[in-house]
Amino acid sequence: MNVGIIGASGYSGEELVRLLTRHPRAHLVSVTSRSLAGIPLAKALPRLRGLVPADLAFTASEPAALAADPKVDLYFLALPHGVAAEYARPLVAAGKRVIDLSADFRLSSTTTYHEFYEQPHPAPDLLASATFVLPELMLDDAWKEKRLLACPGCYPTSILVPLVPLLRAGLVAPAGLVINSFSGVSGAGKKVAEDYIFTERAESAKAYGIPKHRHLSEIEEQLSLAAGEKVIVQFNPHLAPMRRGIATTIVARALVANANAVFTAWQQAYAGRPFVQILPPGQTPDTAHVSGTNRIDLGAAYDPRTGNFILTSAEDNLLKGASGQAVQILNLLAGWPETEGLL
Amino acid sequence: MNVGIIGASGYSGEELVRLLTRHPRAHLVSVTSRSLAGIPLAKALPRLRGLVPADLAFTASEPAALAADPKVDLYFLALPHGVAAEYARPLVAAGKRVIDLSADFRLSSTTTYHEFYEQPHPAPDLLASATFVLPELMLDDAWKEKRLLACPGCYPTSILVPLVPLLRAGLVAPAGLVINSFSGVSGAGKKVAEDYIFTERAESAKAYGIPKHRHLSEIEEQLSLAAGEKVIVQFNPHLAPMRRGIATTIVARALVANANAVFTAWQQAYAGRPFVQILPPGQTPDTAHVSGTNRIDLGAAYDPRTGNFILTSAEDNLLKGASGQAVQILNLLAGWPETEGLL
Amino acid sequence: MNVGIIGASGYSGEELVRLLTRHPRAHLVSVTSRSLAGIPLAKALPRLRGLVPADLAFTASEPAALAADPKVDLYFLALPHGVAAEYARPLVAAGKRVIDLSADFRLSSTTTYHEFYEQPHPAPDLLASATFVLPELMLDDAWKEKRLLACPGCYPTSILVPLVPLLRAGLVAPAGLVINSFSGVSGAGKKVAEDYIFTERAESAKAYGIPKHRHLSEIEEQLSLAAGEKVIVQFNPHLAPMRRGIATTIVARALVANANAVFTAWQQAYAGRPFVQILPPGQTPDTAHVSGTNRIDLGAAYDPRTGNFILTSAEDNLLKGASGQAVQILNLLAGWPETEGLL
Amino acid sequence: MNVGIIGASGYSGEELVRLLTRHPRAHLVSVTSRSLAGIPLAKALPRLRGLVPADLAFTASEPAALAADPKVDLYFLALPHGVAAEYARPLVAAGKRVIDLSADFRLSSTTTYHEFYEQPHPAPDLLASATFVLPELMLDDAWKEKRLLACPGCYPTSILVPLVPLLRAGLVAPAGLVINSFSGVSGAGKKVAEDYIFTERAESAKAYGIPKHRHLSEIEEQLSLAAGEKVIVQFNPHLAPMRRGIATTIVARALVANANAVFTAWQQAYAGRPFVQILPPGQTPDTAHVSGTNRIDLGAAYDPRTGNFILTSAEDNLLKGASGQAVQILNLLAGWPETEGLL
Repeated sequence: MNVGIIGASGYSGEELVRLLTRHPRAHLVSVTSRSLAGIPLAKALPRLRGLVPADLAFTASEPAALAADPKVDLYFLALPHGVAAEYARPLVAAGKRVIDLSADFRLSSTTTYHEFYEQPHPAPDLLASATFVLPELMLDDAWKEKRLLACPGCYPTSILVPLVPLLRAGLVAPAGLVINSFSGVSGAGKKVAEDYIFTERAESAKAYGIPKHRHLSEIEEQLSLAAGEKVIVQFNPHLAPMRRGIATTIVARALVANANAVFTAWQQAYAGRPFVQILPPGQTPDTAHVSGTNRIDLGAAYDPRTGNFILTSAEDNLLKGASGQAVQILNLLAGWPETEGLL
Repeated sequence: MNVGIIGASGYSGEELVRLLTRHPRAHLVSVTSRSLAGIPLAKALPRLRGLVPADLAFTASEPAALAADPKVDLYFLALPHGVAAEYARPLVAAGKRVIDLSADFRLSSTTTYHEFYEQPHPAPDLLASATFVLPELMLDDAWKEKRLLACPGCYPTSILVPLVPLLRAGLVAPAGLVINSFSGVSGAGKKVAEDYIFTERAESAKAYGIPKHRHLSEIEEQLSLAAGEKVIVQFNPHLAPMRRGIATTIVARALVANANAVFTAWQQAYAGRPFVQILPPGQTPDTAHVSGTNRIDLGAAYDPRTGNFILTSAEDNLLKGASGQAVQILNLLAGWPETEGLL
Repeated sequence: MNVGIIGASGYSGEELVRLLTRHPRAHLVSVTSRSLAGIPLAKALPRLRGLVPADLAFTASEPAALAADPKVDLYFLALPHGVAAEYARPLVAAGKRVIDLSADFRLSSTTTYHEFYEQPHPAPDLLASATFVLPELMLDDAWKEKRLLACPGCYPTSILVPLVPLLRAGLVAPAGLVINSFSGVSGAGKKVAEDYIFTERAESAKAYGIPKHRHLSEIEEQLSLAAGEKVIVQFNPHLAPMRRGIATTIVARALVANANAVFTAWQQAYAGRPFVQILPPGQTPDTAHVSGTNRIDLGAAYDPRTGNFILTSAEDNLLKGASGQAVQILNLLAGWPETEGLL
Repeated sequence: MNVGIIGASGYSGEELVRLLTRHPRAHLVSVTSRSLAGIPLAKALPRLRGLVPADLAFTASEPAALAADPKVDLYFLALPHGVAAEYARPLVAAGKRVIDLSADFRLSSTTTYHEFYEQPHPAPDLLASATFVLPELMLDDAWKEKRLLACPGCYPTSILVPLVPLLRAGLVAPAGLVINSFSGVSGAGKKVAEDYIFTERAESAKAYGIPKHRHLSEIEEQLSLAAGEKVIVQFNPHLAPMRRGIATTIVARALVANANAVFTAWQQAYAGRPFVQILPPGQTPDTAHVSGTNRIDLGAAYDPRTGNFILTSAEDNLLKGASGQAVQILNLLAGWPETEGLL
């Protein structure tokens, strides 16, 4: 299968190039960037030196031309929200498959999109062709028929993987969920602003985006689907002085008074899934242990004093939280081993 | 006033030496350490070079001899729990004042101590001479009569300063509090273990001590006093890859549907207190902004979707969370300006 | 004495505000910034919250108005090179004292300035009123008569303090010096550029500015004065993933075959100087030990295999390498204790 | 080919497990550790969770038993110096191939070993079976006949790759070389000591091991071979606050007055070598760009003011400086593509 990446100048795009260059089955035949067109990848993204041919340059990224390119079967979109939809429309019309890393097609509700992204949904007509794909949580293969596969964001992945099986199994109450996440600075992308320079972020831990972070919209939509009722959560994201990684800690009211049920539900939900690791009771995941991998580690404890479960997860925000997961979706879509190119 | 420090080999002890050496009114006349007796301070604690005389050495720390030393009026104890009590008894008997940075005299309940520290309280007979002193939360001056002043720990300070005025004012529900804290690695002291080496902690965020961290005992005792009823909280401490600082985020059920009441209660509680800064609505505190200071910064938001307040704080765990606060207690006890030696 | 700071929006300016607000003898009466005029200091520089009055705002910084302000005796200039000279002229004309943290008056040669800064010297007429002041290296008090005192930069301080006494004493050869320095990221100021964002600088060590860094000009001019002959050095600056600090390592051909002579020369040169600490043989300075202080630590070794001395130093680039040193100059100029406000 | 790793509890061992588990041609059939025998790898080395079978445990590491194991063709030794030789003897006697990551067989001179390691060489009789293998610098394939292949250390690799081709080509003077290296903390291995805890190393840059670091012995032996004369260098290693990476900066007297000759010599020496990248003039390598790869990046500048070349390199100390290079040696030995399992 021949694949292309549209918008490869950011950290997610760079990771996609790295993963797809090494991938034994996918052939990366097109890498575009509006801002870097004509510049060699190895110059703009020096971490890729030696991995890509020295003269391979970003191409321009005109939607119509990309849609017409006969040598590409599937495109990854690593673009800002709003922009992704501009590209998706001609690509879908031209019969291309699209794996979209933006937020544009993660929500089924255009009203929720409007509320959280403060602009009308850019392509409501495409929603019928789209679906949200968190591989380990798909109940069947119907998603493989869709043209437009929306890859979940980093915070949602870190939250949905631990919570969804428990909501489905009725082990935790859908009301009163409190979620705190601690993200490495790359979660903001390659953002050049005073708040993101080294001297401001080193030795800094702080909450932000309170009380209504954008990714809350997809988190709540998916949790509501799992619970079978409307779920509203308290979500507190924080920045931590590290490059990568998200550690998430969820407090959920337990409907059974023992963590064993949690471990059992997870083991059933994730049996045979190579990228979900369930830690033994008493252990908590560590972002340093998953950095550079497509893995998410899970931990659970029951607190008899409060009657709550404390669920913890750790993942690499650029891999399992973005580009690694996108390649995992490609693998499953193509019928290849799930881990192909991801170990 | 002549003061001494017992157990000055750790980070809290080092900060005490630094603060008291520069202090314009307190005279530091005795610095002890069991493990470093005879070694010059500037050699063992090279950050103090040039601040202390090059030949000033740690002295041995025999409780009886320290109690009998006529030139010391007040001792700071920077010792592990259990050990602090061994020193406190002869010092109190000899009429010395003691400011204790350990956990030994922070709790009024020996049962709670036994439960959380997994050993019997080492000196129940001294509790009548002791009291917990978080300066900004004291309702009157009765604490100044006590011999033994227990300086709160870093997590409790970061939690009690935002929460206590709100519980006292009836603005938040005492039930269902969820608290997440994110601490720099010095929160563990100068701990030499594989988990604490640079290569394991850098790029690492992780929860630990779940669900029943030791400091929960003093947090809950103080919150219960403020609320007038038994308070049990969900407390999730985390390690962050930074040297210093604690960022705390508290989710509390709001009893009024507006953050203004929080700001008003804080302004009343902390009017004229130099070390509490209340941030404007919409801002969240940052550990990097308080690092190296004795300040605690507070932020608040109301979430109309959940009906919760989200309260945030940031402090330097070794200063406002330990040694700075201990010197602040000294200043108030001695009738000096609260900021003396602390700006 | 009443002092003002012109251009206080950067890291050096912020440190000056912090130091002068706490200073027991200097009165900070004016803080200006072109870009931040009208904005409260505590808002723009949140590390200063609680240290400065909440409503104290930056004032505009028109050179003529500042020169005419009768309540200011001395100004610190924390401005870019070229800009500093614009302010210095009217200030000097109005009889103000000026301590300049920029490069504009560090060099006596306008030719060298032109060569290294790639523009003509902005105020050659003022050079007669100016002098380079590295406090511990001044041979007499003549500098105190000058209107314009040029405070050395961070790299030069880290190099000149170890080297100058040895060149003066003839212990090292002036030819063939090789100097490597490793600087924290704040050495670049509050620079907002992709290269300086956290995600690019964390886990990154790299050389830059090779082979002709701007500060080389003042380093070589001062070394030449000390040696009594033209000195040209190989200077390799590097960035290290830390906020503050410079570690410098100098390889110099030894003219005596023993490090004792180095230690003796340093002890003579720096006897009684509180901010220079000489480490015992076998030890090397560590930036973490001097961070937050105005100190510079020195180490020396002799290598019998090569016949070289290896001289090492560590300092805080924003304090001994900038603002702390500027206040030290003020203290000496005013006849106050050298350490006033600096411990 | 079936391979084993002896001593896999440290960082180099862990990287070897990771690389060999993913390797498409080598089969990892034995992983031993004295201290961790019986413990599952995924438990002791949580970064490997999901990559190795959950129940795969370290086996005991008795030299005789390992030598007798018929299913292993080649062993990697990731052991301390001195210990490696104990294992090498029976393995070589049993006809196994050995790739040794320790220092035991890197030097041809037992006198030099004794001088630098302060103990007699542990196995002088094995030296005839051993050779130092830095893949890109081997002049022919004779090394493939040796039983014992000594993989170079991290500092030497970062120094020899830039310097050796220039010495061989007579472009730089062998005398007067000054080398400064800046290493991430993992260079010390998984060392549990107060100096290596996070709170001591963060924000710390410092020189150490001056003037006679152990690895100097292999650096000088190899440089001398390349120069055809005895080479003695000034080598200053430093610690930087990062987990991985070595940045090396070499000052060498130029025998031609232009950097072009350097670039040409490198291009000739490293044509077709995937793991050496030569940066364009004006650029300097960055450890962050090579972290996680087996690559070494090289930069060069000529300073007409001093007549020196400044040569810079950056590598990942655990990959190109240790385990990645060891696998590269395996690939070449086995006749596989050089990059197999290393991209």
